[in-house]
Amino acid sequence: MYRPEIKVLDCTIRDGGLINNHNFDHKFVKDVYRAISASGVDYIELGYKNSKELFSSEEYGYWKFCEDDEIEKIKEGVESNAKVAVMVDVGRVNLDDVKPASESPVDMIRTATYVKDIDKAIFMANHFYEKGYETTLNIMAISRDRGLELTDALKQIEKESHVVAVYIVDSFGALYQETTEELVKRYKSILRNKEVGFHGHNNQQLGFGNTIEAIIHGANYLDATIYGIGRAAGNCPLELLVGFLKNPKFDIRPILDLISKEFIPLREKMEWGYIIPYAISGIMGEHPRAAMALRKSDKKENYREFYESLTNTGLD
Amino acid sequence: MYRPEIKVLDCTIRDGGLINNHNFDHKFVKDVYRAISASGVDYIELGYKNSKELFSSEEYGYWKFCEDDEIEKIKEGVESNAKVAVMVDVGRVNLDDVKPASESPVDMIRTATYVKDIDKAIFMANHFYEKGYETTLNIMAISRDRGLELTDALKQIEKESHVVAVYIVDSFGALYQETTEELVKRYKSILRNKEVGFHGHNNQQLGFGNTIEAIIHGANYLDATIYGIGRAAGNCPLELLVGFLKNPKFDIRPILDLISKEFIPLREKMEWGYIIPYAISGIMGEHPRAAMALRKSDKKENYREFYESLTNTGLD
Repeated sequence: MYRPEIKVLDCTIRDGGLINNHNFDHKFVKDVYRAISASGVDYIELGYKNSKELFSSEEYGYWKFCEDDEIEKIKEGVESNAKVAVMVDVGRVNLDDVKPASESPVDMIRTATYVKDIDKAIFMANHFYEKGYETTLNIMAISRDRGLELTDALKQIEKESHVVAVYIVDSFGALYQETTEELVKRYKSILRNKEVGFHGHNNQQLGFGNTIEAIIHGANYLDATIYGIGRAAGNCPLELLVGFLKNPKFDIRPILDLISKEFIPLREKMEWGYIIPYAISGIMGEHPRAAMALRKSDKKENYREFYESLTNTGLD
Repeated sequence: MYRPEIKVLDCTIRDGGLINNHNFDHKFVKDVYRAISASGVDYIELGYKNSKELFSSEEYGYWKFCEDDEIEKIKEGVESNAKVAVMVDVGRVNLDDVKPASESPVDMIRTATYVKDIDKAIFMANHFYEKGYETTLNIMAISRDRGLELTDALKQIEKESHVVAVYIVDSFGALYQETTEELVKRYKSILRNKEVGFHGHNNQQLGFGNTIEAIIHGANYLDATIYGIGRAAGNCPLELLVGFLKNPKFDIRPILDLISKEFIPLREKMEWGYIIPYAISGIMGEHPRAAMALRKSDKKENYREFYESLTNTGLD
């Protein structure tokens, strides 16, 4: 698949940071930045721009806050064409903390939102746009929110915002190809002046497959992470996506090197990937939080009981 | 997806046996047989019916030969509606060793073949059919053999054989959704009286996604293995397939139990799954043998060098 419009965004540090409270050290982040830059990937997302008034900097690492100074340290001395992105959540950022783009090492700010918060999210995205950033809106938990409200939200985004892309975020790893196809087509039918993005989760080993499906139907902004790192089941593996895309600007080798040297040992210390309780929550379309709690308990391998606990929650 | 015609075949013991020379002990095989039977899966494949004149029974375990007596020991005392399948390779079976179906615990014999051996394979499948077995033809290495020869082979199968299904076997884990779709449509356009089967490999984490793609376009015979076990990257995970199919005859819980109790510890001793050299050979459309050799060497994590060794084999 070679379509020059396609942009790949690596969110290794941002989504991987959800496993370790964003506590990656600067050397590791710089190694990732260097490999992403050498591989020709378009964007690298380093974390969240959360307010230090809401989250403790003792509890969370640098990449929960993504202060410009820290990002400058990562960029320093590395030749790169990769643009830097950060993510913000509705209600968790102090807008006054965000300098104009011209004074910041950040190129893109992505606002993560649920359908129900779309008004606030559009307001925020417009605020960042006015400060000179590229912006996106990333609609989470989409497998739950596929009704009319989503259609309305997309119409509102098309009319009121200046984002370059609107993402389908399969937070629960519950989408299959047919649901992915329907969503991409609906997005494209409404968003005439904006690109469609896709962020897959890998609960059912469909992160990559659904990303291909999204590409087939016209999505051009694609998220992935090195070796699929990310909370719970993780994400679409960047190495597979780069192997699939035929654009000659990409080079898979720096990513392979980094997996050899950093990610194989890291996986021994941090858990993500194809793990049955996450597969079960994907099959059920549930948030992974119950599965994450299970993995921290002494029942971590008790899959049948976990499955039954999710199926027997009668709603009288 | 609920289509009553869909049949699921578990090949855990057969394909998993490619990792350990078919040396699973009877207790393990019986545990798998019991779980598959309880889960409502339609078929269970236990191994190869290879000739003992060609392979040493000191080097290989029982499931390389699948003698009727050994299969009887597995079935004994277990309530089951699952039919038993065995696989044969062209040229590796002594046809005289195969008793009539009425005297055997085996229900189905699947003949694995390359396109080039289709004449021999049809002859063998017809031989088993005449002995009373259900039969299939499983066309291997299909990502390499997608040209006119495949079309001709399918026409010949339609005309000359009595198989219930003809499989697409993605031996190299190289298919994507679009190639899967094209193959299923081609098979269906030629095979008017036979079902289409799909056997995916998981090199690029597409075993399950491609199986869904095959289902969407009309494949009704689907292979999978528990926890994706199988040579190299392994196969479509049975638990995901059963979680996807909505036929109420299936029960995922016995499979989850078995993964907890047997497959999590087994994975510590045997290697399969998403491993970068297998992903690379899938991306390149190569047989996994070079990657398997790498994994047994002291360069097992040297991915860049391996990648370069596959790309730099100039054919002058």
